[in-house]
Amino acid sequence: MAICDIESVSGNEIQLADAIEATLEKFDHLSVVRDGNAVVASTNQAKDRVIIAGHIDTVPVAANLPTQLHHFEREQVIVGRGTVDMKAGVAVMLKLATELSTPAVDVTWIFYDNEEVDSSLNGLGRLSRNRPELLSGMFAVLCEPTSAMVEGGCNGTMRVEVRAKGKKAHSARPWMGSNAIHALLPALNTLNEYEPATVNVDGLDYRESLNAVTASAGIATNVIPDLATIMVNYRFAPDKSASEAEALLRQWFDGFEVEVMDVAEGARPGLNTEVAQSFIAATKTSVHPKYGWTDVARFSALGIPAVNYGPGDPSLAHADNENVPVGHIHDCYQGLKGWLSS
Amino acid sequence: MAICDIESVSGNEIQLADAIEATLEKFDHLSVVRDGNAVVASTNQAKDRVIIAGHIDTVPVAANLPTQLHHFEREQVIVGRGTVDMKAGVAVMLKLATELSTPAVDVTWIFYDNEEVDSSLNGLGRLSRNRPELLSGMFAVLCEPTSAMVEGGCNGTMRVEVRAKGKKAHSARPWMGSNAIHALLPALNTLNEYEPATVNVDGLDYRESLNAVTASAGIATNVIPDLATIMVNYRFAPDKSASEAEALLRQWFDGFEVEVMDVAEGARPGLNTEVAQSFIAATKTSVHPKYGWTDVARFSALGIPAVNYGPGDPSLAHADNENVPVGHIHDCYQGLKGWLSS
Repeated sequence: MAICDIESVSGNEIQLADAIEATLEKFDHLSVVRDGNAVVASTNQAKDRVIIAGHIDTVPVAANLPTQLHHFEREQVIVGRGTVDMKAGVAVMLKLATELSTPAVDVTWIFYDNEEVDSSLNGLGRLSRNRPELLSGMFAVLCEPTSAMVEGGCNGTMRVEVRAKGKKAHSARPWMGSNAIHALLPALNTLNEYEPATVNVDGLDYRESLNAVTASAGIATNVIPDLATIMVNYRFAPDKSASEAEALLRQWFDGFEVEVMDVAEGARPGLNTEVAQSFIAATKTSVHPKYGWTDVARFSALGIPAVNYGPGDPSLAHADNENVPVGHIHDCYQGLKGWLSS
Repeated sequence: MAICDIESVSGNEIQLADAIEATLEKFDHLSVVRDGNAVVASTNQAKDRVIIAGHIDTVPVAANLPTQLHHFEREQVIVGRGTVDMKAGVAVMLKLATELSTPAVDVTWIFYDNEEVDSSLNGLGRLSRNRPELLSGMFAVLCEPTSAMVEGGCNGTMRVEVRAKGKKAHSARPWMGSNAIHALLPALNTLNEYEPATVNVDGLDYRESLNAVTASAGIATNVIPDLATIMVNYRFAPDKSASEAEALLRQWFDGFEVEVMDVAEGARPGLNTEVAQSFIAATKTSVHPKYGWTDVARFSALGIPAVNYGPGDPSLAHADNENVPVGHIHDCYQGLKGWLSS
């Protein structure tokens, strides 16, 4: 609750970063490095190394701070901005970083900034450019909310603009032109006929999807439009590369102009390694695929298998009624502690 | 050319209105009334009455004033803003108004403002509210450009928003929602399957059309949209009322939310009256339907059959290279003079 009550909307993390740095610096078993508003604390026992990471920023506050502790019949719940995404995870990390002076593996604890804003500002991305030596390890855990279950890897995502062309004309004489909106028909047919694939990758089922997210066309209400555009988002399983995803989109929207607007590669769950298996065994929970894109893909791109594991229901992230069961926090604390102590 | 060279972009007609009023007031056979920047001059012989009308405003100048007279091998052409739409027509009206002191029928000559802007500002509309007694007659001629042919009546036009509804969801989990853009498919099918009707009204063939003119959807690129909207323009033959057109649109887009955004009734050509037949005979030209909406529909709504007849190719109206053959001006002058003198 104290961590949540230090407001840290993206770009305004300095106070919380200072508090985290000051806390960690008191412990001799940790080397602490500060980079902007990211704080990295490492144990140094010359053992195999894992990374445990979490972002310290939140989306804007919606009159939901300071936090409140609600007592229900069966559980306690902390309500407020950041409780789910992801300061409950940060709390677990911070407690374990200070308590585990001689973990079974070396641990690099990464607290980073600017995850909720444009990808170019992401603190983990900045660390990988400024201090690449800090991002080494054989496995990474990102404490994003997963309801205290393990979510492995993530789907990739690609957005393309699909454009239909026509010929302008006055709408009183449309037969002099050609209507670009009407020409979108085959694209809408493709979207409606698309059957979502479910792809098994390293034992987890990834559900794909293909959706138009925006549409725009028209110059004026008395002109037949010569251009109609839909933005299509393809979420693809991590067995596919971005270029394979693009090839599929170009095939599906053959006959249209297709331009890639943004892309993020997926991440394979990486659960077939020994360290991943020991992590799953220690947490004693089920393993699920992650559909949304998270920073595990950054670790994956660095060749580090990574999973999500943290307190809180991810569907409550960013919600005005964001809240986390205290039980989730204890579960994740115990799960990580068991793994790192064994 | 002098009329064109008095710049009179909509809202700035005062100088030209003053010049027209001063010119007409010199003639004893005319009673002149001024209303805003509209000037109405009437003969008063206690005969049957016709109305001959034209607007004196233009769209903005595009470095195409002052006018230039170009001499080609076979014809002279006046180039410049307003030459086609519709100061060549105004010139014909002005010359005939002053010359014909005892026309075969009484004539109300209407020179009006603000035709090229929002319909609520239209000078003819204002006259019909302020001075309804001035808008009476058994037939009206609007000297809008028709390449000196007679264009009868006009299509009606209705714009409706056709809205598909869905359910918002994060685009990583689209199966939690329902995509409104995808739901537009039946509307696009309707638009593509529509077969333009050609409807014969009072002997003229009116070509109808149904077109999407704008499309919009989407809140953010990671959200499945819950609303997708297309604006559809239906141009309908003057055998149909606006409410009949609306009923057809609601039938075609059954299953969608349909809201009428704007509408203008069509105008029947009204060529079956004796006075119309005498007009057509006198102008010795062919009669065509008008596809675009013009102020003849205002006369039609007042129960006065009306046609378009004026110099200039209407497809050059508003163009930067707007220009009128001098021959058209003479043809219309002779045509109207013959009719009003017989």
